Amino acid sequence: MDLAVEKTSSGREYKVKDMSQADFGRLEIELAEVEMPGLMACRAEFGPSQPLKGARITGSLHMTIQTAVLIETLTALGASVRWCSCNIFSTQDHAAAAIARDSAAVFAWKGETLQEYWWCTERALDWGSEGGPDLIVDDGGDATLLIHEGVKAEEEYEKTGKVPDPTSTDNAEFQIVLAIIRDGLKEDPKKYHKMKGRLVGVSEETTTGVKRLYQMQANGTLLFPAINVNDSVTKSKFDNLYGCRHSLPDGLMRATDVMIAGKVAVVCGYGDVGKGCAAALKKAGARVIVTEIDPICALQALMEGIPVLTLEDGVLEADIFVTTTGNKDIITVDHMRKMKNNAIVCNIGHFDNEIDVHGLETYPGVKRITIKPQTDRWVFPETGTGIIVLAEGRLINLGCATGHPSFVMSCSFTNQVIAQLELWKERTTGKYEKKVYVLPKHLDEKVAALHLGKLGAKLTKLSPEQAAYISVPVEGPLQAT
Amino acid sequence: MDLAVEKTSSGREYKVKDMSQADFGRLEIELAEVEMPGLMACRAEFGPSQPLKGARITGSLHMTIQTAVLIETLTALGASVRWCSCNIFSTQDHAAAAIARDSAAVFAWKGETLQEYWWCTERALDWGSEGGPDLIVDDGGDATLLIHEGVKAEEEYEKTGKVPDPTSTDNAEFQIVLAIIRDGLKEDPKKYHKMKGRLVGVSEETTTGVKRLYQMQANGTLLFPAINVNDSVTKSKFDNLYGCRHSLPDGLMRATDVMIAGKVAVVCGYGDVGKGCAAALKKAGARVIVTEIDPICALQALMEGIPVLTLEDGVLEADIFVTTTGNKDIITVDHMRKMKNNAIVCNIGHFDNEIDVHGLETYPGVKRITIKPQTDRWVFPETGTGIIVLAEGRLINLGCATGHPSFVMSCSFTNQVIAQLELWKERTTGKYEKKVYVLPKHLDEKVAALHLGKLGAKLTKLSPEQAAYISVPVEGPLQAT
Amino acid sequence: MDLAVEKTSSGREYKVKDMSQADFGRLEIELAEVEMPGLMACRAEFGPSQPLKGARITGSLHMTIQTAVLIETLTALGASVRWCSCNIFSTQDHAAAAIARDSAAVFAWKGETLQEYWWCTERALDWGSEGGPDLIVDDGGDATLLIHEGVKAEEEYEKTGKVPDPTSTDNAEFQIVLAIIRDGLKEDPKKYHKMKGRLVGVSEETTTGVKRLYQMQANGTLLFPAINVNDSVTKSKFDNLYGCRHSLPDGLMRATDVMIAGKVAVVCGYGDVGKGCAAALKKAGARVIVTEIDPICALQALMEGIPVLTLEDGVLEADIFVTTTGNKDIITVDHMRKMKNNAIVCNIGHFDNEIDVHGLETYPGVKRITIKPQTDRWVFPETGTGIIVLAEGRLINLGCATGHPSFVMSCSFTNQVIAQLELWKERTTGKYEKKVYVLPKHLDEKVAALHLGKLGAKLTKLSPEQAAYISVPVEGPLQAT
Amino acid sequence: MDLAVEKTSSGREYKVKDMSQADFGRLEIELAEVEMPGLMACRAEFGPSQPLKGARITGSLHMTIQTAVLIETLTALGASVRWCSCNIFSTQDHAAAAIARDSAAVFAWKGETLQEYWWCTERALDWGSEGGPDLIVDDGGDATLLIHEGVKAEEEYEKTGKVPDPTSTDNAEFQIVLAIIRDGLKEDPKKYHKMKGRLVGVSEETTTGVKRLYQMQANGTLLFPAINVNDSVTKSKFDNLYGCRHSLPDGLMRATDVMIAGKVAVVCGYGDVGKGCAAALKKAGARVIVTEIDPICALQALMEGIPVLTLEDGVLEADIFVTTTGNKDIITVDHMRKMKNNAIVCNIGHFDNEIDVHGLETYPGVKRITIKPQTDRWVFPETGTGIIVLAEGRLINLGCATGHPSFVMSCSFTNQVIAQLELWKERTTGKYEKKVYVLPKHLDEKVAALHLGKLGAKLTKLSPEQAAYISVPVEGPLQAT
Repeated sequence: MDLAVEKTSSGREYKVKDMSQADFGRLEIELAEVEMPGLMACRAEFGPSQPLKGARITGSLHMTIQTAVLIETLTALGASVRWCSCNIFSTQDHAAAAIARDSAAVFAWKGETLQEYWWCTERALDWGSEGGPDLIVDDGGDATLLIHEGVKAEEEYEKTGKVPDPTSTDNAEFQIVLAIIRDGLKEDPKKYHKMKGRLVGVSEETTTGVKRLYQMQANGTLLFPAINVNDSVTKSKFDNLYGCRHSLPDGLMRATDVMIAGKVAVVCGYGDVGKGCAAALKKAGARVIVTEIDPICALQALMEGIPVLTLEDGVLEADIFVTTTGNKDIITVDHMRKMKNNAIVCNIGHFDNEIDVHGLETYPGVKRITIKPQTDRWVFPETGTGIIVLAEGRLINLGCATGHPSFVMSCSFTNQVIAQLELWKERTTGKYEKKVYVLPKHLDEKVAALHLGKLGAKLTKLSPEQAAYISVPVEGPLQAT
Repeated sequence: MDLAVEKTSSGREYKVKDMSQADFGRLEIELAEVEMPGLMACRAEFGPSQPLKGARITGSLHMTIQTAVLIETLTALGASVRWCSCNIFSTQDHAAAAIARDSAAVFAWKGETLQEYWWCTERALDWGSEGGPDLIVDDGGDATLLIHEGVKAEEEYEKTGKVPDPTSTDNAEFQIVLAIIRDGLKEDPKKYHKMKGRLVGVSEETTTGVKRLYQMQANGTLLFPAINVNDSVTKSKFDNLYGCRHSLPDGLMRATDVMIAGKVAVVCGYGDVGKGCAAALKKAGARVIVTEIDPICALQALMEGIPVLTLEDGVLEADIFVTTTGNKDIITVDHMRKMKNNAIVCNIGHFDNEIDVHGLETYPGVKRITIKPQTDRWVFPETGTGIIVLAEGRLINLGCATGHPSFVMSCSFTNQVIAQLELWKERTTGKYEKKVYVLPKHLDEKVAALHLGKLGAKLTKLSPEQAAYISVPVEGPLQAT
Repeated sequence: MDLAVEKTSSGREYKVKDMSQADFGRLEIELAEVEMPGLMACRAEFGPSQPLKGARITGSLHMTIQTAVLIETLTALGASVRWCSCNIFSTQDHAAAAIARDSAAVFAWKGETLQEYWWCTERALDWGSEGGPDLIVDDGGDATLLIHEGVKAEEEYEKTGKVPDPTSTDNAEFQIVLAIIRDGLKEDPKKYHKMKGRLVGVSEETTTGVKRLYQMQANGTLLFPAINVNDSVTKSKFDNLYGCRHSLPDGLMRATDVMIAGKVAVVCGYGDVGKGCAAALKKAGARVIVTEIDPICALQALMEGIPVLTLEDGVLEADIFVTTTGNKDIITVDHMRKMKNNAIVCNIGHFDNEIDVHGLETYPGVKRITIKPQTDRWVFPETGTGIIVLAEGRLINLGCATGHPSFVMSCSFTNQVIAQLELWKERTTGKYEKKVYVLPKHLDEKVAALHLGKLGAKLTKLSPEQAAYISVPVEGPLQAT
Repeated sequence: MDLAVEKTSSGREYKVKDMSQADFGRLEIELAEVEMPGLMACRAEFGPSQPLKGARITGSLHMTIQTAVLIETLTALGASVRWCSCNIFSTQDHAAAAIARDSAAVFAWKGETLQEYWWCTERALDWGSEGGPDLIVDDGGDATLLIHEGVKAEEEYEKTGKVPDPTSTDNAEFQIVLAIIRDGLKEDPKKYHKMKGRLVGVSEETTTGVKRLYQMQANGTLLFPAINVNDSVTKSKFDNLYGCRHSLPDGLMRATDVMIAGKVAVVCGYGDVGKGCAAALKKAGARVIVTEIDPICALQALMEGIPVLTLEDGVLEADIFVTTTGNKDIITVDHMRKMKNNAIVCNIGHFDNEIDVHGLETYPGVKRITIKPQTDRWVFPETGTGIIVLAEGRLINLGCATGHPSFVMSCSFTNQVIAQLELWKERTTGKYEKKVYVLPKHLDEKVAALHLGKLGAKLTKLSPEQAAYISVPVEGPLQAT
């Protein structure tokens, strides 16, 4: 893709695959709005008072139809928005086109190179001469990472005059990050400091991104307040669990059309994501095996009738492998070599280092046959048999299907909107320090409540006597989930 | 589409969408072969003796990747093959291209008009001057229907000189059938008699097609022997049930991306197909309601925790409607008018008359918004709200996804191969009269047995004492399922 | 138990454990009536016309609360009834007491010896000087067997003067049968001939009993007409499947209190009973393994995510073993010796020869520790570890719990009532020969229909156009299930 | 029951129903030991060092077979133990007998009156002249409550000379508590102060008891340290969830034999207990409806396909009602009056005030028919129809069955043992103040790990690189569940 920023007739910047898909995107956005009652309720409740007026928001989050509804909720509340995706395969090009045309500056397309990916991220953070965004909506933490790395490099440069050296790392992706920062330094040695100076805070929605934030908090390197949206019950126990339960089989079916019933499937990790994946596969008729490091999660799997084994035990006979751990090097080339012909290997954890795709690419004599985009068969020279790797080891549900469905994303994104409102509202009060916060329980309950009507549910109300008996206010918050 | 037959360099006729997709089709066919052990076992067992040598087979059956493996199994056994699809939306164009290029005469593409559909059917039946096929592989009975209607018209013509009058019927599709026969009559007034004369028999695989055959048998109008493949246990209790359990949610997700969890879904009919659909929706987290006419099926639904109501009871509040009945006029325009905004309406029964799409099209003031092919939103003028109709009321799993997965189709198609072998072997023995037959139990068991190894199963063997105790041969057939 | 027949104040014979439990039995019978709508509907529909007036019915069927409602339905329709149980452990003593006091001659108690069991059977068949019953309600075929063996012996005696010799067989139970017949011969050498002469027919409700009948039909030895109630869909697809799904875990929990979740359970046989058992165990959180001889049933298990292995593969690591096959020698002593400590072994097939309990009893040095009635731990001398055998290898659900619940038994027993009515109505018409018959489809559908109202279901009605389209009468019978 | 303490030959006090059941109890205890690997591992690890040597432990916890294994684990670690049950129906008399004979002072029997219940509690707390226990193992908090109320009364008495007045409350049970304290005051006005003085702490295992503790902590009235065992993941997410999933249907089946399949069941509350109950009923084939006050739990139910309605919506048509809330007045007499005939009403929450049984008892003209102990039919005079109330509104699983199974209780009780060890070890260090504590995560993980081997699970080990990547120690604790 030619990396030149384009502009709409109104002058808003963008870079998307195909602007002619905007109408199609708009139709699907309209369908999604009906499925996202939490976001629509935010528009109804907050739209009139324009509480995000004046706020510049940068988002780094899969540029899908659902995200389009999030973006247009933020703009409906008064914000200006720039956006990039947080995964090279997760953009839905018609969604990107519709938003670019109608609502916000978008830099995203399906099938970015890593180079393009970071260019998009950098574009989304760049608000011109007055510095960066006021707020960040993050997913996985790449926007946050870039700023932190940028600030670190600028400090080093100020002290020692040294610029980042991409050859200092083996990690291909981090080389690109360093090159971008290096190039930025030359233009403006305070670029990231300016961003940091302006930034009110970030709200982050993945387990993986949140872990990074807590590590920075622990190290004392966190540069601005962060709201951990992931640990809202209405996020981690919903989109991680029910979202993956929906979108994992969706991705498998679109990519391979394979019959899941009758197969042996190995799910690596039995956290919320793993629980959703294992449930989906089991319900589809697979015999599921789980691998776990945590004895509590392992015992939960057993209670559901799922055996817990190590990958070594399950490798040879299984048909489908899914990594969900948030850790690295879960499935190695050595594992893959021993799998049976046409075993399917995929990942639904945030980053692409759970499966050693790099090792596969560099395996001597290996042959890659691309069946279709995001579906590759890798044939080993020793055996002549092959395995099928989906989405090049990146998020299968976003690479091979369309990600989580709208309804569950409405829960996650309503948390994001509430977090953004909170950060912006308290921007001058000092309520939030450079720490990681979770949303209070009553807001978590509110997010859930906004989604009940669509499904026809009726809540029971506590009587005052009952509320007193269990020592909670009648109006909540109620007990933990 | 320009209805001109094309030819391969070897002179074989075809008409497909895009021959350049043949390589992609071949790659997916190779994947499917690994998933279709029954068909591959037939190739291994029968290929060397070429038992179908000299047989001309016409198939009218969804031209998918799985069907491609069936076709190439038939050719591997010595047959010559011509093929059309049995549904205007069910062809996978890359499969059609690969087969047309490599193996058989194919007339099929995704998105045929009805006119094109019957043209394709007629092409598939036309083996040139020497008459029609020796054998038919049928799905829904359209190839069989065309011959029966043709013969009837020729007899009438011979007696009275009258040719079929398309205006004699309201049914738009049947008008086309009559026109084709009328046109054929002009060319050759014995065309269908010649076909009938040559025909050894048909094997039919759907509930719907089989019902037609039994009706013809009852009426004494059946023109040639038929093997009812549908009622092999390894067909109706497998592809109807487990196939739909896989492909219904697949179709829903590809067409709408809607979250099934939390929704209310109405399944009309709780036969094998309905059982598969209801199970899939329930497992995906929907609240399922079934409608039934048969008290036994109704009681089965109740035993699985599924309420049985009439459509009138479930219409207003449900989110998803699926027809599976094999009957007509199940969901009327009046039902659809009362549904809530963006209710999804689809059909997985063989024919497209379960949902009154015609009534929808002719509803005064209705507005059709095509979101994408096979996904239409119909907006009613009174309410301004709309419903979403998938695949224009035709088979959702084939119109919006890729049909049943390979493994379960291997069971169905192995029955087809065995039936074809049997009809051809006994073509001169008089074993089969102009009646409908089912395959004997030991062949049904054989089909199942061929699929166990792929899934790592090990059968227990009866001891002679045990076999004697239950009065069966040690080698089977064993008891009913 | 002292084998002396007792009499009620009204002169009706009986032998039960404890007549003081009659009030308790009556309370539970009244609860069960609410759960057995099919039987109660028969009373309402047929009671006034007394169609069984004059009929003598002998039943050999588990003397439970549910059976009590069946018996009192038969008497409400005019019949006289004598009853015994068809299993030494299956009687509920309070049910037996209530029926003995109020309605019919009962000879049954929980924990009969085999000697007592056959004495009870013989008492139930003995209607005094005028011969035996007009009709038999059979479960497993023991009443039918006794008559057939009796007639055979009488013929032999008439021809040769030889009486049956119990020592001619190794089978301990058959020795008792022969002794009873021998003793009967001395009293009346035409006793069983008289029974045969009077008998109008039998209705039989188990897979096992039905197999015996078909064998006798095939051999030409069947002495009277038989209706196979088992193969009514509303019987075999309901009580075998849903009944066992309920009563297997019930029996396991009452007998052992063991947590099923997390355990490995082996189900031998995946017919209707096995399907119900496997579903129950899987739903309870066990990892289920199935053994099968039939490839079709095996493939069904696989489609549900259940591995199919041989007992040899699953023996060492499993925690629970259930036999459901209807065949013999499924779990041998050699299997049991290799099981892990406190593995639970039980049977839910009709007869007690699926598990080799006899082999266990005679195993050198084995030690039997009775935890409580029907729960025994058998310790092997080599290992000092033990296994837990339930109900001495007889039906666990009736031995360790209370059998299938009322609602599903109402389906089975309504079939029995309809069969008895049919046999009695046609007793002089010659409609039924000495063959095995199944009930017609419309009666099967009627049984189901009678059970829908209790569960709040509403059936859809076919329109005349729809009925014509699928070629069935509007009022049914409809298609097969 | 005559309330006279008895003594074993060795002089240990007890009061149980029937000492002759001790052998039977011992056999079942031995079976349970095999199912309780966590407790047995504690015996193996800690037994040799006798870390509880010198500790006097009073337990108020259902006196079941599982509890027997807990008690003998505590004694194996050196403790002296006195025990009572925490529910009038939950004692298994053979378990009580075995423990009384062999291991500890037990005051418990199935079917205590409330008067007897509190007598037992008081006996269990009374360690003679030197005061009370060192440690309490509590379930629901009644032992803790008695001490707190006792101390309060003694303080009042010391200040004002006033003794507690049972007539000051309407609550029948609390009247008994006050009477006991009043009587104690007369004997020793410092009795409860002495207990308080000696007490090192309590470990409490129910949601309900823990709520009481947090309220006391909040009020500043907590008299000694408390460890909240309930909120160990291996407790609340295991016994509450998987325990109830097992024991609710067990209780329903033993009490009523009702077929759950096909029925409509209402579960009040969808916390951990409600989730287990709803899952069990759904898996058994019921149509489940949930009532909830908490929108998050409500949304979770919906995601599992379970409708959320208010009791008012579900009352008339449902067949089974289960309360699981931990709150009071959930099912009122007015609800019960409107239920259909033979609707089943039961509670599995800790206290008996979820269902208004008192209101039922005092309803004018109501008639109570005891089918069998813990199963009562209540007939309303207006309708002549009745409902069936189980266990008089107390815990159905303990009143009508045998409580949770051993394996899951091993998780809960291992937490109890670890908590007792911790309190005792730190008794002089001041580590624990008069507050409520939860066990640290690594101990929670240890409890889980102790239960994996029994189920054949194998954990994956983190590599050092992986541990570093997610910033946890290789040996754990790992992330939250």
